[in-house]
Amino acid sequence: MPRIVDHEERRAEVAAAVWRIVSRDGLEAATVRRVAAETGMSTSVVSHYFAGKDELVTEYLHRFDPDVMPGVFDRTDLTPRERLLAAFEVPMTQGTEDVTPLCPYIAAAVELHDPQHPASQYARDYKTAIAARLTETAREAGATNPARLGEQLALLIDGASARTQVLNSDSFPIAAAVAAALIDNAIPTSSPRQPADERGTTAPAPVPVGGE
Amino acid sequence: MPRIVDHEERRAEVAAAVWRIVSRDGLEAATVRRVAAETGMSTSVVSHYFAGKDELVTEYLHRFDPDVMPGVFDRTDLTPRERLLAAFEVPMTQGTEDVTPLCPYIAAAVELHDPQHPASQYARDYKTAIAARLTETAREAGATNPARLGEQLALLIDGASARTQVLNSDSFPIAAAVAAALIDNAIPTSSPRQPADERGTTAPAPVPVGGE
Repeated sequence: MPRIVDHEERRAEVAAAVWRIVSRDGLEAATVRRVAAETGMSTSVVSHYFAGKDELVTEYLHRFDPDVMPGVFDRTDLTPRERLLAAFEVPMTQGTEDVTPLCPYIAAAVELHDPQHPASQYARDYKTAIAARLTETAREAGATNPARLGEQLALLIDGASARTQVLNSDSFPIAAAVAAALIDNAIPTSSPRQPADERGTTAPAPVPVGGE
Repeated sequence: MPRIVDHEERRAEVAAAVWRIVSRDGLEAATVRRVAAETGMSTSVVSHYFAGKDELVTEYLHRFDPDVMPGVFDRTDLTPRERLLAAFEVPMTQGTEDVTPLCPYIAAAVELHDPQHPASQYARDYKTAIAARLTETAREAGATNPARLGEQLALLIDGASARTQVLNSDSFPIAAAVAAALIDNAIPTSSPRQPADERGTTAPAPVPVGGE
């Protein structure tokens, strides 16, 4: 039987190499040349699948978190309020081999300097999707204005991500404390959908450890 | 009289060129070659003042906001509480010819991928200084835990900056609304240092337009 090139497998191999390169050196390093060196393919083979850096970065973003934090939002063992808080516990490290200190969607928007670039557009869509999931969860939790709470929590996540990068130390606990206060303010205590608990309104609430 | 090269003037000229280049194309574009083209100097003259891109970026950051938002924090016509809110009104546009959508200190941290780089270190110092000014102002406003409020507000500013960049639309009003709620929660209404006002606890407070 003749050997048949499995294109899907090769694309996946390239994507995995991009992942490793970006984890180490950031989106900037996602070039055809680097991917070729990493995979042992020729640059022309790599280019056959992804024409250049722009497509490599876009592919990376598409694969980073296609289901929009399922490890937080699809957990059925948590109450909606707990899921909102858990979003601050598994920042942006799902699936990466190394810890990615900054959300790659922010990094793409920063590094590309072009809001019309396909990767910038995808980053925008992703950030909108995160806010939508937070809003949906806020609604389940009984928030009086779920869209407002969702946007606020999304902004806190981005703030923690940016500040963690620039300070080089974890800012998510600060964001989680603010989130807990906002959630308590936004959800009437009599809400039938919000289980009673003992948490105060401003202290950093204990957050269940996020799943895988 | 022989013509004497004014080195300080030349450094300033180079710095101004870096400013224009970064405003248009981001920190990535701050290269000796680009500065030479922009100023009409030779690359060797530019290199005499700044050895390379790293030094150019560092110089840019040093000049961007050396006094740490004086247009907000040194205003004597505002109460401390109003100054805290005004920090969300003049995001990162002071002194720039074009609007800089993203805080350049975050951009530096993202683009350099190296926490030990002098520009990354300066970005960290700057972000710490902003939090310190917010903390100092929170203390003047009578906050029960000024350091905590200062860190929270600093994180909100960074979140608004990152989110404005990635969504390509202004997220500062959302951050300002959260800030107003946090400030009201943190400052006891009976505080003698906080002038009484009519603002509610969660509505986005009207903020005076920040001047220089």
